[in-house]
Amino acid sequence: MDAAEFRRRGKEMVDYVADYLENIEKRQVYPDVEPGYLRSMIPTEAPLEPELYEDVIKDVERVIMPGVTHWHSPYFYAYFPAATSFPAMLADMLCGAIGCIGFSWAASPACTELETVMLDWLGKMLQLPEDFIAGTHGHGGGVIQGTASEATLVALLAARCKAVRLAQASDPARTEAEIFSKLVAYTSDQAHSSVERAGLIGGVRMRKVPTDSKYAVKGETLKNMVEEDKKAGLIPFFFCATLGTTPSCAFDHITELGPICNANKIWMHIDAAYAGSAFICPEFRPLLNGVEFADSFNFNPHKWLLVNFDCSTLWVKKRSDIIGAFKMDPLYLKHENQESGRGFFFFFDRLRFRSLKMWFVFRLYGLTGLQAHIRKQVGLAKEFESLVKADKRFEICADVIMGLVCFRLQGSNELNKALLKKINDAKQIHLVPCQLSGSFVLRFAICARTTESRHVQEAWQHITQLTFELLQEPCH
Amino acid sequence: MDAAEFRRRGKEMVDYVADYLENIEKRQVYPDVEPGYLRSMIPTEAPLEPELYEDVIKDVERVIMPGVTHWHSPYFYAYFPAATSFPAMLADMLCGAIGCIGFSWAASPACTELETVMLDWLGKMLQLPEDFIAGTHGHGGGVIQGTASEATLVALLAARCKAVRLAQASDPARTEAEIFSKLVAYTSDQAHSSVERAGLIGGVRMRKVPTDSKYAVKGETLKNMVEEDKKAGLIPFFFCATLGTTPSCAFDHITELGPICNANKIWMHIDAAYAGSAFICPEFRPLLNGVEFADSFNFNPHKWLLVNFDCSTLWVKKRSDIIGAFKMDPLYLKHENQESGRGFFFFFDRLRFRSLKMWFVFRLYGLTGLQAHIRKQVGLAKEFESLVKADKRFEICADVIMGLVCFRLQGSNELNKALLKKINDAKQIHLVPCQLSGSFVLRFAICARTTESRHVQEAWQHITQLTFELLQEPCH
Repeated sequence: MDAAEFRRRGKEMVDYVADYLENIEKRQVYPDVEPGYLRSMIPTEAPLEPELYEDVIKDVERVIMPGVTHWHSPYFYAYFPAATSFPAMLADMLCGAIGCIGFSWAASPACTELETVMLDWLGKMLQLPEDFIAGTHGHGGGVIQGTASEATLVALLAARCKAVRLAQASDPARTEAEIFSKLVAYTSDQAHSSVERAGLIGGVRMRKVPTDSKYAVKGETLKNMVEEDKKAGLIPFFFCATLGTTPSCAFDHITELGPICNANKIWMHIDAAYAGSAFICPEFRPLLNGVEFADSFNFNPHKWLLVNFDCSTLWVKKRSDIIGAFKMDPLYLKHENQESGRGFFFFFDRLRFRSLKMWFVFRLYGLTGLQAHIRKQVGLAKEFESLVKADKRFEICADVIMGLVCFRLQGSNELNKALLKKINDAKQIHLVPCQLSGSFVLRFAICARTTESRHVQEAWQHITQLTFELLQEPCH
Repeated sequence: MDAAEFRRRGKEMVDYVADYLENIEKRQVYPDVEPGYLRSMIPTEAPLEPELYEDVIKDVERVIMPGVTHWHSPYFYAYFPAATSFPAMLADMLCGAIGCIGFSWAASPACTELETVMLDWLGKMLQLPEDFIAGTHGHGGGVIQGTASEATLVALLAARCKAVRLAQASDPARTEAEIFSKLVAYTSDQAHSSVERAGLIGGVRMRKVPTDSKYAVKGETLKNMVEEDKKAGLIPFFFCATLGTTPSCAFDHITELGPICNANKIWMHIDAAYAGSAFICPEFRPLLNGVEFADSFNFNPHKWLLVNFDCSTLWVKKRSDIIGAFKMDPLYLKHENQESGRGFFFFFDRLRFRSLKMWFVFRLYGLTGLQAHIRKQVGLAKEFESLVKADKRFEICADVIMGLVCFRLQGSNELNKALLKKINDAKQIHLVPCQLSGSFVLRFAICARTTESRHVQEAWQHITQLTFELLQEPCH
C-alpha cells in the first residue's frame, strides 16, 4: 500500500470509525460468541500473497465485530470507563505517523519534552503540590506509563531500592537478600489486584490493611500494623493508598495516613486510577488533600479524562529515587544532552508519542470541557442512585461519590447473582459484580462518553423489569 | 468535536500523515533544538476554554516537528528500525475506535482471540516448534507485550517462580527469601541493558557471560559458569540468550546452550528483538535452530516486521508457568468463560486491540511481501558493507548478517568519536555508536522502510567526505 492508497483507505476508515461510533447504540453491547469462535472463521495461516483491502475490511464486520464488547456503547456499565474522544484519536494518528521511539531525549526531543510539560499542565489542573511539577525548582515531575499497575510497580521498586539503601546505610553488613526478607508493604484490602501482584514481582511481603465501614483505610489501622511489624523486626517500606477503589470507589484517609508514612519512612504511593480525573473539579479536589505527604501519585486519564488508552500518568516528588532504581547506561543510548533531557526513563515507559493525545484533548476540550464531562457522568450516577433508592426492594451498598453506583437487591447473594445473570444474559446492558463485606453486589458504572439520562432511565427500567420477572420465578 | 467534525478533521489528518511520510526526506533527520526548547513555546497551563482545531494543527509544525528525530527518514540509520506501514496505521485507527480494554476474554472476546490466532500465524511463519503454538495439542502459545524488555522480565519472573517451587519441593523448609538469595541468572555481556534491569527488578543476581570473538555466547562458557556457581551453592535458574545483539547483531549459539539449560533446569529465554523478524525467511531460519530447547521466545514485529509500535511477541512452551507466576482472581474480573478464553493474562499486557495491526499487515503484505522487506534491507546493509570494505581506511567490526553494519576508521577511539560527532553534527544522516572489545564503533542500521540504494550510496559518500575533512584537520 502506497501513500496514495493510504489517502483513500484512510479516509474510508475515518468514515468507518465515525459510523461505528455514531451508530454504536444499534449494536448489542455484549457479544453472542462462544470461546474459540474466531479461530474457525479465518485461515490457519497467514496468506503467502497480499490480499485485497476490500476483503480485509469485509472481515472486520464478519469476524471482529460479532466478538466485540462495545465499551463505548451507552449500554455499557461494566468495570470503569475506557476514555475515548475524537481529538485523542486524531492525535493517535499523528503519533503513529511520527512513529518515534522516545527512550531518550535524543531519540526525539519533542516526544520527551511535550510529555514533561503535559504532565505539568495536568498536575496543575489537579493542583498537585509544586514538588510534583517538573517546571519548578523542585526535584519532581511526571511521566506517562501504560497502566496504573505498572505505575504501582515502578513506585514499589523505587521504594524497595530506597529501603535497601537506608538499611545498608545504618548497617553496611546487611545483604540485599536479607533486607528483602524483612521488607513489608501495605495496601487496602480493597486495593486492585495489581498492587498485590506488584509485591509478588518485587519479592516482598504485601499486607492487606482492613478497611472501615466505608471501605477506606484509616490512619490508626495502618499505624497499628506498622508498629506491630516493626516490633517483629520487619521493615515497613511502602504503602499504596487508593483513592477510588475498584469495587466501590472508596477513598482511603490519606490526610491521616500520610503523616504516619512520613514518620516511619514508608513510601506512600497513591493509586487514583479511576477517580483521579475528577480532581480537576474544585468540588472533588478535597478528596486529594494529603497528596502532599505522598512520594508518588498516579491516575489514568485513559479511564475518565477523554484520552484514549494508554495514558497512565505518574508523578514523583524526587525523580532521583526512580532513576536510581532503574539506571543503566549503554553506549548506544548515550548522547550529548543525556542529563538535561528526558530526565527520567523508567522500565515501563511505553515510548510512543502519547503526550500528543493529552495536548490535543486538553486544548480542544479546555479545562471547562473536561470538568463538564466529569460532572455530567457524576450527575448520571446520582440519577441512577435516586432511582435505586426509590425502589424499596433495593439497597445502595456504598456512598456514591463519583460515577459508580454499587447496589443490590435486599436478599441473598444467590438472588443477586441470579439478577446479574439475567441482566447480562439479556445483553441489553452490561454490568459486572463486586464483593463488599461478603455481599455480592452489582456495580453500575457510567462509562461511555455518550451516555445520557435516557440511557440510565432505560437501564433502570430494564433492571426492574428483570427483577420483577426474577421475583416471579418459583424458586425465589 | 462531534462525529461530523471528526470526519472532516480525520480526513485532513490522513492527508497530513501521507504528506509527512511522502516528503520526509525533505526534513532534516535530526533536530536543531536544545534541551528545554519546547516549554517556552507553549503556555504554562492548559487553556480554560476550548481552542480552535486550526491552532492546534498549526502548532504541530511550529512546536512539534522542529523537535522530532525522524525515525522514518531514509537518512535515519540509528539504533534499530521502528516499524511502520500504512496497513498498520489503518488498523490502529480501528483499534482506537473500538477502544476496548482486553484484560479478559469477556472484556472483548475478539481482542483475546485474534491475538492468540495472530501469534499462531506468526509462530508458523517462523516455523516455531508446535509446542509454542496455541492451536495445537501443546500447552504453549503467544501473547503481545509492549517491549522486549517487558517480555524478558515476564520470562525471568516466571522462571523465578518455578525455581522457588522446585527448591521448596525438595526442601519445604526453605523460605522464598533464602532461595532468592541463591538464584542466579545469566546473559551475554552483549545483552541489552533491559536484561540486567530485569534481574534488578526481580531481585536476583545476573551474571554476564563472556562472548567469543564474534560477540556470541558459546555453550562451554555458560556450562563452566553454571558448574562453578552450583559448586558455590547457588541455584542457576535463568539464561537469556540473544539472537541479534544490540551492539553488533551477534547470535548466541543456542543449539549448544539449549541442552545445557535443559540439563540444569535453567529456563532459557530467547531475546531476538530485532533479528527475529528475519526468521520468516528460510535462509535466516537456521539461526533460530535450537529454539526447541527454549522455554520462551520473544521478538519485536514493531522493529522490523512493518507493524507499528507497540507489538512485541512472546511465546511460551507452557502457559501454566506464566499464569502460575501472576495469577490473581478478583470478582470483578470473573466471568463464565474465564478458563477457556484469553488463556493467559500477564502483568504487562498492553490490553489494546493490537492484534488488528498484525492481521492487517500480514494480509495486506502477505508472507512474500514481508520477506521482500527483510531481504531488501539486508541487501542494503550488504551494499553498505561493500562500500566500507572497498575503502582501506575503514574496517568492518562484526559480521554483517542482517541490516546492521558495524564499522570504524582504522585508528584510535578518539578519531572515531570525532568522526561520529562530525556526522551527527552535520545532521544529514543520523547514527549511534557502540563499543566492541573496547573499540568505539559506528553502527549503520538500515531503518526506514523507504531507504533505497541511492540513500545508502549518498550516506557513504557523505561519510567519506567528512572523513576526508577530518583527516585534513591538523590534530589528526
